[in-house]
Amino acid sequence: MSILEGISEPRDLDSLSVAQLQELCGDIREYLVESVSKTGGHLGPNLGVVEISVAIHRVFDSPNDAIVFDTGHQSYVHKLLTGRKDFSKLRQKDGIAGYPQRSESVHDIVESSHASSSLSWADGISRAFKATGQTSRHVVAVIGDGALTGGMAWEALNNITDDNDRNLVVIVNDNGRSYAPTIGGLARSLNAIRTESWYRKGYSLSRRIFSKFGPLGRLLFRAAHAAGQSVIVEASPNAMFPNLDLKYIGPIDGHNLQELETALRQAKDYGGPVIVHAVTQKGKGYDPAVSDAADQFHAVGKINPETGLPLSSGSGQSWTGVFSEEIVKIADANPRVVGITGAMLIPVGLDKFAEKHPGRVFDVGIAEQHAVTSAAGMAFGGLHPVVAIYSTFLNRAFDQVLMDVALHKAGVTFVLDRAGITGPDGASHHGVWDLSMLQVVPGMQLAAPRDGQRLKELLSEAIGVDDAPTAVRFPKGNIPSAIDAIVMTDDGVDILHQSPSKDVLLVSVGAFAHTAVQVAQLLAAQGIGTTVVDPRWILPIRSSLVDMAREHRLVVTLEDGVRVGGFGSRLRQELRAQGVDTGLNEVGVPAEFLEHAERDQILDRLGLNPRAIAIDIVAQVVGTKVPHAKPLDQTPFDSSIQESAQ
Amino acid sequence: MSILEGISEPRDLDSLSVAQLQELCGDIREYLVESVSKTGGHLGPNLGVVEISVAIHRVFDSPNDAIVFDTGHQSYVHKLLTGRKDFSKLRQKDGIAGYPQRSESVHDIVESSHASSSLSWADGISRAFKATGQTSRHVVAVIGDGALTGGMAWEALNNITDDNDRNLVVIVNDNGRSYAPTIGGLARSLNAIRTESWYRKGYSLSRRIFSKFGPLGRLLFRAAHAAGQSVIVEASPNAMFPNLDLKYIGPIDGHNLQELETALRQAKDYGGPVIVHAVTQKGKGYDPAVSDAADQFHAVGKINPETGLPLSSGSGQSWTGVFSEEIVKIADANPRVVGITGAMLIPVGLDKFAEKHPGRVFDVGIAEQHAVTSAAGMAFGGLHPVVAIYSTFLNRAFDQVLMDVALHKAGVTFVLDRAGITGPDGASHHGVWDLSMLQVVPGMQLAAPRDGQRLKELLSEAIGVDDAPTAVRFPKGNIPSAIDAIVMTDDGVDILHQSPSKDVLLVSVGAFAHTAVQVAQLLAAQGIGTTVVDPRWILPIRSSLVDMAREHRLVVTLEDGVRVGGFGSRLRQELRAQGVDTGLNEVGVPAEFLEHAERDQILDRLGLNPRAIAIDIVAQVVGTKVPHAKPLDQTPFDSSIQESAQ
Repeated sequence: MSILEGISEPRDLDSLSVAQLQELCGDIREYLVESVSKTGGHLGPNLGVVEISVAIHRVFDSPNDAIVFDTGHQSYVHKLLTGRKDFSKLRQKDGIAGYPQRSESVHDIVESSHASSSLSWADGISRAFKATGQTSRHVVAVIGDGALTGGMAWEALNNITDDNDRNLVVIVNDNGRSYAPTIGGLARSLNAIRTESWYRKGYSLSRRIFSKFGPLGRLLFRAAHAAGQSVIVEASPNAMFPNLDLKYIGPIDGHNLQELETALRQAKDYGGPVIVHAVTQKGKGYDPAVSDAADQFHAVGKINPETGLPLSSGSGQSWTGVFSEEIVKIADANPRVVGITGAMLIPVGLDKFAEKHPGRVFDVGIAEQHAVTSAAGMAFGGLHPVVAIYSTFLNRAFDQVLMDVALHKAGVTFVLDRAGITGPDGASHHGVWDLSMLQVVPGMQLAAPRDGQRLKELLSEAIGVDDAPTAVRFPKGNIPSAIDAIVMTDDGVDILHQSPSKDVLLVSVGAFAHTAVQVAQLLAAQGIGTTVVDPRWILPIRSSLVDMAREHRLVVTLEDGVRVGGFGSRLRQELRAQGVDTGLNEVGVPAEFLEHAERDQILDRLGLNPRAIAIDIVAQVVGTKVPHAKPLDQTPFDSSIQESAQ
Repeated sequence: MSILEGISEPRDLDSLSVAQLQELCGDIREYLVESVSKTGGHLGPNLGVVEISVAIHRVFDSPNDAIVFDTGHQSYVHKLLTGRKDFSKLRQKDGIAGYPQRSESVHDIVESSHASSSLSWADGISRAFKATGQTSRHVVAVIGDGALTGGMAWEALNNITDDNDRNLVVIVNDNGRSYAPTIGGLARSLNAIRTESWYRKGYSLSRRIFSKFGPLGRLLFRAAHAAGQSVIVEASPNAMFPNLDLKYIGPIDGHNLQELETALRQAKDYGGPVIVHAVTQKGKGYDPAVSDAADQFHAVGKINPETGLPLSSGSGQSWTGVFSEEIVKIADANPRVVGITGAMLIPVGLDKFAEKHPGRVFDVGIAEQHAVTSAAGMAFGGLHPVVAIYSTFLNRAFDQVLMDVALHKAGVTFVLDRAGITGPDGASHHGVWDLSMLQVVPGMQLAAPRDGQRLKELLSEAIGVDDAPTAVRFPKGNIPSAIDAIVMTDDGVDILHQSPSKDVLLVSVGAFAHTAVQVAQLLAAQGIGTTVVDPRWILPIRSSLVDMAREHRLVVTLEDGVRVGGFGSRLRQELRAQGVDTGLNEVGVPAEFLEHAERDQILDRLGLNPRAIAIDIVAQVVGTKVPHAKPLDQTPFDSSIQESAQ
């Protein structure tokens, strides 16, 4: 039996010797590579936090002590140590989540995986423990150096230092990277700390660590020394946030278990907020990851565990890929175009732009607020910035989109990747909020391409607008086959399907056009005529949609975002304003959090496949709005739909 | 003629002597006190930046150089120096705005007045100037120490230090306060800098300032020295953000024109990003402000200019006042209740709670993101946090409300003050986004009290919910008279007015109940029967609303927020889901930015007064939905409405 097999909860670690713990770390790495190579997942980050996770669970007592992971994709080792060892369905329906999840374990606390939030969580939890007399409980936050570039982390640190009488340990997992290498002055500062000579020459017994901790610190030091602790980690007080006057231990070798344990025990015993600075290597112990220049296997698909090479050939072109190539062409032709990314250069597809035009793509760190407002500034200064960002992360900058970009009519283009239902990353990564959020932004022009050709066209049109914010949103994954329009209206609405009878007007947003065309075919079997249109620009509402709505018996909108306040809701308000009383049925995502699963599984559950949508429409119109529609039981509808929906 | 009268644009400052400039500063203070005491406005902050504003316009050349004010309420002096000297209608319809406004002047750039954004603007503008070859143009950002507690400022500084080849000067206006005294480690650090002995002993010629600027810096120093500059300000390199390695000059006496000018010229000539740290006093030169312990006259109503005492007796109780007293009672009874404010202790009414229960109210600085997420942490740790915040500022934490509070079903109560149309503060301060934003938050329970009694009840009900986020939103100003319910439905919907004929169901949100009752009276004159209901809780939708909607011929919703995706929109979706096909007409605010004016003026312009709403309803139902309704021209409707609407 391997040592890992013998660990079913954290306290099983207590009896292990140093050698056994080191063997355990080896077991864990082996298991991670073997299992994540079969399912895909965040491999590199977790290989980097093996020793940190073991040390945390040795020194602290979860769940009595609260352990909070920033960007929870670094929680795999934590999961293994807290009884979750079946990774065979990682990130799949009914399998374990790729992030901490309270429903899985009492050891999981923070589920959201938007970066830089852990310190605020830890601040709140430790204040509550203190206020409610739970003084034996400690709080540990694990945050990467990349996440420290996010403003939330600064806000939290500024508060954490304000109350020195609570049990709060912040572990900075410093691997010099967020997704990409960490940017900015802070990164330079960390780099300088790491390379200072006293760090390079190794650790030695020293009183320096507690020299600034005051009388209590010195007392603790003497107690620790008397207890025979052999390693007291050398520390540079305040090296990381000197202006905040936070206690600091480090830098520690984040792959040396004994140093980590010693530092964490000291931090724990101090009884006040302490930063422990651990230097780690992303992908540690797995050569293909360590030697990967792009991102040390930050997140992988299925791979060959020996070579690290992807197993699938990756046929088909992704939405991101089309954007990536098109933005280079646009930038070639227009020197005013610049790109902005929040630490996601490659995932959002700005890498080719950055290679071709050095100095014209800005990585601002995990700092969406700054990304958006600095874009407004760039627009004022004469540029046309393209902010490329995952749809879900734009939520971080709602206020800036509204107050800095829209209020100032800044010509900024947002490229929202991973919009709609994304799948395995779970609740925090679905891009289902953007359509509703952007509806309320005055002057916003919002486009949703249905295929690669439309993405190119709409991107170019968006970047051509210099006096208003524009956004182009598209989903995760590969681009579906193109659907050519039968005809385009004067105001740019594509008609994709037209029946002789104008019963239902089906207005689909973006890639849902394919679903819409299938729905139309199913409705045809019931004798219901359907016009399928893709407005391409969903904001502002095109007037031809209003005209067409007037001529139909029912309008149905299809969108890959929350129904509440979405495109359909807006279109209906516009119809009413124009005196059109055709009923409108919004089909979209309910306002709820969606668990991880494949995209299609989630769509099925929500009734967002062609069959479910068609059945719903038939039920609404039979015998009322569309007198000639055939009821479901009088046609081979069901079987034909089942075929089409495959 | 006073010197101020002779200044119509910044270059008029060039020919003034030192003595004349000092006289000008006196003129400006006199004018500010005299004029703002008549209109109300942000007096204290502007008295604090008189010399800084004059020095900026002496050293820089606006609008060629771009001047960006953080929280633009500190731009009055800038307005005076750029040709806007009629303050008689400050913040009133057709008068000058209380914030910079591009439509007023080419010297104004950033209109939004949400804090901490100026450095991102400045970063973006200076990058654009560089990228487009506008190398002679400088960018100046003026930011308070309070705004530095906001995470955006950190994100920006981390980026600003990344490119040292552009013209960017950051002036930190350090008065030790945001609205309240600035909190956190940064504030302590600034305080330490201010009180260091070398600052107290005054400024003297020194080479130290450029010692860390490298060869170029030393060259500049020698040039400046040779040119006979008599004061080189002593500097402590990196005193403020040592971990970011930003060039720094200071601290400077922010009321000493010559020191300011010298420092700004040095910063300007350096040719890279520089922080100039100026220490100022809020309210400077006006005794009633300086000696005001609460907030140094941060924002005042009409006052007696001699004494600083308010002119109006302030009769009537404000919404904030009712909340302020009620939260103390709730906190007395429930030790788990704590308060959180973002640097707005008094304006949001948490001051009495903080006085009565020291240690249970947390001021987190201008840090809405941290406020919300640390609240989620506190809820996890066993407390029930009440985050009291202006409605418009919650936009800064949309992601945190969604991902940290709602996803974790945290029992956090948001108290949204200044919700709806607020008035004189203009576009950035209207709280018209919350109803739409919170609609998409899964599990959110949202209440809108119509009067003081309901505020007390709903606040208490909200704080009683520990497994979901709750919000209570109310407007600015005084509480209207109470409206008693005729009856309450089982699920808590108050029926306020009932006609024999069930024609129109009027569902009003919060304080719009008063408008709704007036509308009902007007409709009665047309023979239209109206049921007026106040749902109290507008999320989740109460099922009795659906039942009542079924029994009426038309549903009209009234809300003080953007119509798009608001309460009415949500109610209509619920009606459709329940198979109710009664038409629904959402009355609310359009999704546009609203200029400053009195609340009633804005409501009139938007057609949100009883008369306009009633006319709209009559037009919709006459001859169709309500056959017995009398057309407008057959009744004394118009005159009766005009009377009612007064």
